[in-house]
Amino acid sequence: MNRIPHVVIIGAGFGGLEAAKRLAKAPVQITLIDKRNYHLFQPLLYQVAIAGLSPVQIAHPVRAILRRQRNLSFLMAEVSGIDFKARKVLTEHKTLDYDYLILAAGSRTNFFGMESIEKNSHDMKDISSAVATRNHLLKMFENASRETNEEFRRSILTFVVVGGGPTGVESAGALSELIHLVLTKDYPQMDLREARVILVEASNHLMPNVYPRNLQAATLKILRRKQVSVRLRVGVTGFDGECVTLSNGETIPAQTLIWTAGVRVASLIEQLDLEKGPGGRMIVKPTLQLPGYPEVYVIGDAAYLEDEKGQPLAMLATVAQQQARHVARNIHGELQERPPNPFRYKDPGLLATIGRNAAVARLGGISFSGLLAWLIWVGLHIYRLIGFRNRLIVMLNWAWDYFFYDSQVRLITKE
Amino acid sequence: MNRIPHVVIIGAGFGGLEAAKRLAKAPVQITLIDKRNYHLFQPLLYQVAIAGLSPVQIAHPVRAILRRQRNLSFLMAEVSGIDFKARKVLTEHKTLDYDYLILAAGSRTNFFGMESIEKNSHDMKDISSAVATRNHLLKMFENASRETNEEFRRSILTFVVVGGGPTGVESAGALSELIHLVLTKDYPQMDLREARVILVEASNHLMPNVYPRNLQAATLKILRRKQVSVRLRVGVTGFDGECVTLSNGETIPAQTLIWTAGVRVASLIEQLDLEKGPGGRMIVKPTLQLPGYPEVYVIGDAAYLEDEKGQPLAMLATVAQQQARHVARNIHGELQERPPNPFRYKDPGLLATIGRNAAVARLGGISFSGLLAWLIWVGLHIYRLIGFRNRLIVMLNWAWDYFFYDSQVRLITKE
Repeated sequence: MNRIPHVVIIGAGFGGLEAAKRLAKAPVQITLIDKRNYHLFQPLLYQVAIAGLSPVQIAHPVRAILRRQRNLSFLMAEVSGIDFKARKVLTEHKTLDYDYLILAAGSRTNFFGMESIEKNSHDMKDISSAVATRNHLLKMFENASRETNEEFRRSILTFVVVGGGPTGVESAGALSELIHLVLTKDYPQMDLREARVILVEASNHLMPNVYPRNLQAATLKILRRKQVSVRLRVGVTGFDGECVTLSNGETIPAQTLIWTAGVRVASLIEQLDLEKGPGGRMIVKPTLQLPGYPEVYVIGDAAYLEDEKGQPLAMLATVAQQQARHVARNIHGELQERPPNPFRYKDPGLLATIGRNAAVARLGGISFSGLLAWLIWVGLHIYRLIGFRNRLIVMLNWAWDYFFYDSQVRLITKE
Repeated sequence: MNRIPHVVIIGAGFGGLEAAKRLAKAPVQITLIDKRNYHLFQPLLYQVAIAGLSPVQIAHPVRAILRRQRNLSFLMAEVSGIDFKARKVLTEHKTLDYDYLILAAGSRTNFFGMESIEKNSHDMKDISSAVATRNHLLKMFENASRETNEEFRRSILTFVVVGGGPTGVESAGALSELIHLVLTKDYPQMDLREARVILVEASNHLMPNVYPRNLQAATLKILRRKQVSVRLRVGVTGFDGECVTLSNGETIPAQTLIWTAGVRVASLIEQLDLEKGPGGRMIVKPTLQLPGYPEVYVIGDAAYLEDEKGQPLAMLATVAQQQARHVARNIHGELQERPPNPFRYKDPGLLATIGRNAAVARLGGISFSGLLAWLIWVGLHIYRLIGFRNRLIVMLNWAWDYFFYDSQVRLITKE
């Protein structure tokens, strides 16, 4: 080729953004496409939902992040389709030709076809759903403060969180702290010991799959200490907005269901007529190339690849970022006519927080929990947040919360 | 009376909040009603619209502000009517009896019946409209970045601000700076010298009425230096979303109209069948009591009262706050069987900012403009913002903006 190769990257999440940065010095022209104008620090989105952080603290404009990258254009657009044969990406605004395509379209909430839950529950997949969750949660306390029927008030103050993975565990722990440490002070006339946070997980353990047994047990212990009721081995099958139905037939009167129990690929990926693996993820070669289309790389939640033990790689930011770096290296190599290498995930460990002062961690092969894990979690998350100013403000917020048991963003902004 | 008198305050704006605080030690029981759960620092709302501040930085939950006040209950509710004869406040949730009523219902945007403007323009009266304005403004730059038709692109990049009062002047100045100092860096491929901010004011002067002539002239000079086109002696009569029509028949192709040219009382006040003054404000006695209902006080934007020169008191936070203090004193007095005193406004001066480094001020009878006025403005506004943490974060934000010409909240959150 004489002209400069054009790399199109779909998605400005952890994978897409990292790929764009790693190609900054490559002899290519990059177009990064996202339907939003910002990169979202997804792991802290639950903090927006429980009024701990404001959206601006976990989101940063893509143009501001990549402002100095000369070989990149950003296009805010929804991708409507991909013509792999003609090497074209179709968007609502224009069609782009590519020489390389990096598909990093991410994932969304999976309700497994349960319409009553999809309609009435709250999830946390983007800023607007997290803000809607925050508004709903806070409104429940306003409603409860006016409610004279004791039974009905208890149902207003019952919060069911579904899914015992990191998002569910972190949300339940943080919500329980919000209620018992912060909102009790806002509502001195109400007895918030009436309020209940119930975490429901269908399997035998919290943090199923990846976490070792002792951390699963530690998670359970910490959550119970934080006044969260944990229900294992039972699923949620319906929610009409007033009552949660469990898989064993039991019902829980509650006006709030937070759904964190399922993830599926983005609708763009779902529409593509190619071979899919479990969860609708696209089956890729060990090099992360799409079979039959060596110029297409798929990374992050959109890609299905197994590790050496035959386990599928998890939908984690660290996986997406490592794959992004790998793809950038492969493209660099191909431009110098070297063949692409297979990807191998290097597990950096696991880390999840359960409210203030408590977290569970597996780092360097060692599992531990408690304050030290929490301090590592805080430090790492602040460090990973994009933008120096954000980091500073998040740190101040958290320091404030820590010392004063306060929580700032208690605004009901939509009605 | 043997029982404790019940004071109902409608509105948690500057007036209502101040009245509630000043009655903290009075032998009364207070119910403060607002349809929102937060107090809004309205004078900085335009900063949310131009992506300078995040909503949480200018809003604070009422319950958090008044948490330590033992004689107060907060009720988040919309007031549907007032029965002055029966001394009852009707809300969507319940009806409250009162011994004293303080009406501090505030104001809203006045479009003077021009439906095309009401439908297509943006205003800044609450958080959601300010966030909608921010999203719209930022989306214009994304649209422009994709637009190849030069003429159409110019109309996308034309921003018309209507109203030469403080909000219009501050918004136009800040928007021009956002474009020429910040967004030029986000859009290196676009020539943002194409972008125009046009401020339209129907009278002969910017900052009409209250400001002295030399400050009106200084405002004009500063705005022009900041690349704002100022059009005086012409009104806006229509806007279909693509073209602004002026009162002289001229048209300006533009996709953005920010309307700051009119204020009218809240709909609650409008519905009341009592004697109204200009702007629909309720005519009150010099003691701020409602004629015929001595137990009802009206303060702030809702009240119409003239000063000793026969000029109506302006719709300003300082007026509302002074009136709130006065009413609290009057109620204190009445409880000790002293007659209420007439209100006299003590003018603390005027202060308006016009973007970075520039403001106009009249303090202690002296008029001045420039950097000193701006520093006073920054200090005063940070001091007046509620909550220590907010203050610190706003200060850090502004310090950052000042030194790095950056502006943080450039998120398009609604689509």
